[in-house]
Amino acid sequence: MAGAEWKSLEECLEKHLPLPDLQEVKRVLYGKELRKLDLPREAFEAASREDFELQGYAFEAAEEQLRRPRIVHVGLVQNRIPLPANAPVAEQVSALHRRIKAIVEVAAMCGVNIICFQEAWTMPFAFCTREKLPWTEFAESAEDGPTTRFCQKLAKNHDMVVVSPILERDSEHGDVLWNTAVVISNSGAVLGKTRKNHIPRVGDFNESTYYMEGNLGHPVFQTQFGRIAVNICYGRHHPLNWLMYSINGAEIIFNPSATIGALSESLWPIEARNAAIANHCFTCAINRVGTEHFPNEFTSGDGKKAHQDFGYFYGSSYVAAPDSSRTPGLSRSRDGLLVAKLDLNLCQQMTGRYEMYARELAEAVKSNYSPTIVKE
Amino acid sequence: MAGAEWKSLEECLEKHLPLPDLQEVKRVLYGKELRKLDLPREAFEAASREDFELQGYAFEAAEEQLRRPRIVHVGLVQNRIPLPANAPVAEQVSALHRRIKAIVEVAAMCGVNIICFQEAWTMPFAFCTREKLPWTEFAESAEDGPTTRFCQKLAKNHDMVVVSPILERDSEHGDVLWNTAVVISNSGAVLGKTRKNHIPRVGDFNESTYYMEGNLGHPVFQTQFGRIAVNICYGRHHPLNWLMYSINGAEIIFNPSATIGALSESLWPIEARNAAIANHCFTCAINRVGTEHFPNEFTSGDGKKAHQDFGYFYGSSYVAAPDSSRTPGLSRSRDGLLVAKLDLNLCQQMTGRYEMYARELAEAVKSNYSPTIVKE
Repeated sequence: MAGAEWKSLEECLEKHLPLPDLQEVKRVLYGKELRKLDLPREAFEAASREDFELQGYAFEAAEEQLRRPRIVHVGLVQNRIPLPANAPVAEQVSALHRRIKAIVEVAAMCGVNIICFQEAWTMPFAFCTREKLPWTEFAESAEDGPTTRFCQKLAKNHDMVVVSPILERDSEHGDVLWNTAVVISNSGAVLGKTRKNHIPRVGDFNESTYYMEGNLGHPVFQTQFGRIAVNICYGRHHPLNWLMYSINGAEIIFNPSATIGALSESLWPIEARNAAIANHCFTCAINRVGTEHFPNEFTSGDGKKAHQDFGYFYGSSYVAAPDSSRTPGLSRSRDGLLVAKLDLNLCQQMTGRYEMYARELAEAVKSNYSPTIVKE
Repeated sequence: MAGAEWKSLEECLEKHLPLPDLQEVKRVLYGKELRKLDLPREAFEAASREDFELQGYAFEAAEEQLRRPRIVHVGLVQNRIPLPANAPVAEQVSALHRRIKAIVEVAAMCGVNIICFQEAWTMPFAFCTREKLPWTEFAESAEDGPTTRFCQKLAKNHDMVVVSPILERDSEHGDVLWNTAVVISNSGAVLGKTRKNHIPRVGDFNESTYYMEGNLGHPVFQTQFGRIAVNICYGRHHPLNWLMYSINGAEIIFNPSATIGALSESLWPIEARNAAIANHCFTCAINRVGTEHFPNEFTSGDGKKAHQDFGYFYGSSYVAAPDSSRTPGLSRSRDGLLVAKLDLNLCQQMTGRYEMYARELAEAVKSNYSPTIVKE
């Protein structure tokens, strides 16, 4: 299973394929070719100084008579944890705040209107350990925790909507933990929050020992730049989850994730992209980068020896469009910012037959449901 | 847009990439590497004599204590129309019967238990023309038309379940047309039929001028070799369609199709594969091959000049598994038979939260539904 040494699928194809073949391969794998964005030179210089990758692409829609193009620039951030997982909690959070602040400043130079960070971005993805302390100390209030206040400043300073996925402690409701994304308006106000609807129960994803499946349904957030939703991580395996965000009107669905090569790398180019195609919206798949080492060893329920890391987070964040085109992925090994210029006029619904499915699904979940099976 | 001259994505990657890179690319794009099947030499000889491609792959599941492996061999057939579209109807049908008989004989040598042909396999895909005659003369009774009787013989002779997608004329119900797949048991009995649930309204896919969306729901057929369903062509764009077949117990879902490069080639590696992952079943995506020329010109609703063909059917049939692995595609340009050995023990459901979605979807289809949109 490849770690950091294999940079990216795209880099490999571009290095080895002759141009005509490369074009055909890209046509089949990536759809319509996207124009590279002409991002400002100072943005590239700052990205280089701060040692992260910067890429930008534009998705274009056909011209219409009655609607003008509805242009929005989104930013996807992927990053390693800058300090080791055994550093003091407060120091880790501060280091992550500093790192993200630097990346957001570059996003602002690029005209980003909506930015989204990776899942549980203020902490190492420590749920593999099944230990409570110190990891649950990373949990914060969604409404007024230090990270939300930090993001409100960013949002207001840069006139940017910020999607901030954190580990939430809900002190208004019994102090329980949730895997939550806070959505902050470009005004700096907290627009609301949304929670992870599906929790994996596989490999080292022991999240179900920390928090439950989300109870907030499928809210969509009306921002100045378009209607957005957040489908956190494992929710991308569930087509119904994407569907309900789309039915509620989402034009862009962010998918902040933390996932590793052994389990999901061959699913990664498929799932968010299929959701964009099926639901006629943009999807933004974001994954963290690197290997995180934990102080104590743990086992993985696979009969293998105890170990101290979760595996390799392979980055590869990308944006997918309703017309089946997609950006290349960011690197598998470096922190990065992906800027995409979207024209929301590309989002258009088609024939759905939802009434039939509502009826069939309502029948299917009844305890006395008898599946439609034809026998000889 | 590439026609027949570009053979396949896989051939291109294998030709140009150094082995270590090829392995990484395949890991990301195809998941776990599949073993090639050791098919009999006489099968390869017959395929070569009849000028079609033959490939075979095995999907393996982990050993269990209480269940034995549940092995089934499926066969996917892709082909050109052997006669020009303006040949007499009866001659075209006979030529297709002969072609398919030859391929099925090779499938039998390979131990295939269930075989599926491409969408509307007894005819050119003439719906682009919007002409009624002679194309509607290709329609037959699903229960006792000449093609069903032909398939019953094949099924009985070779102890093979046959999935036969045809243009159906339902003389028991007002003589209307349907896009239908007939499922024939290995005993030779007609097990039943299923209809295309979603009809494209895009490009030259003028099928909605010939037949309506299917009215048979999501039946699953219990065969001696496993439970199968048939999601015809454009149904693969609809995650709810795959889901309902899966909820009714399908372990293998066939997706007989007729689709062209300009519209769908970048969706092709995504949709059936996502369905296998999301629904924990095998999916078999089948597409026809070649360019079909029609006697009279027609336009495409895109402002372009009238023309006489629908575009290039790019073949590339493949099988996808629940663990995100998949076979390579058959060629983009040649007739072919893809044999896959499946272990149905790979199909295992996970946490679904279907009650929540049944409730939300039932609400969402109400005429007074108010989407969950959070505003500042």
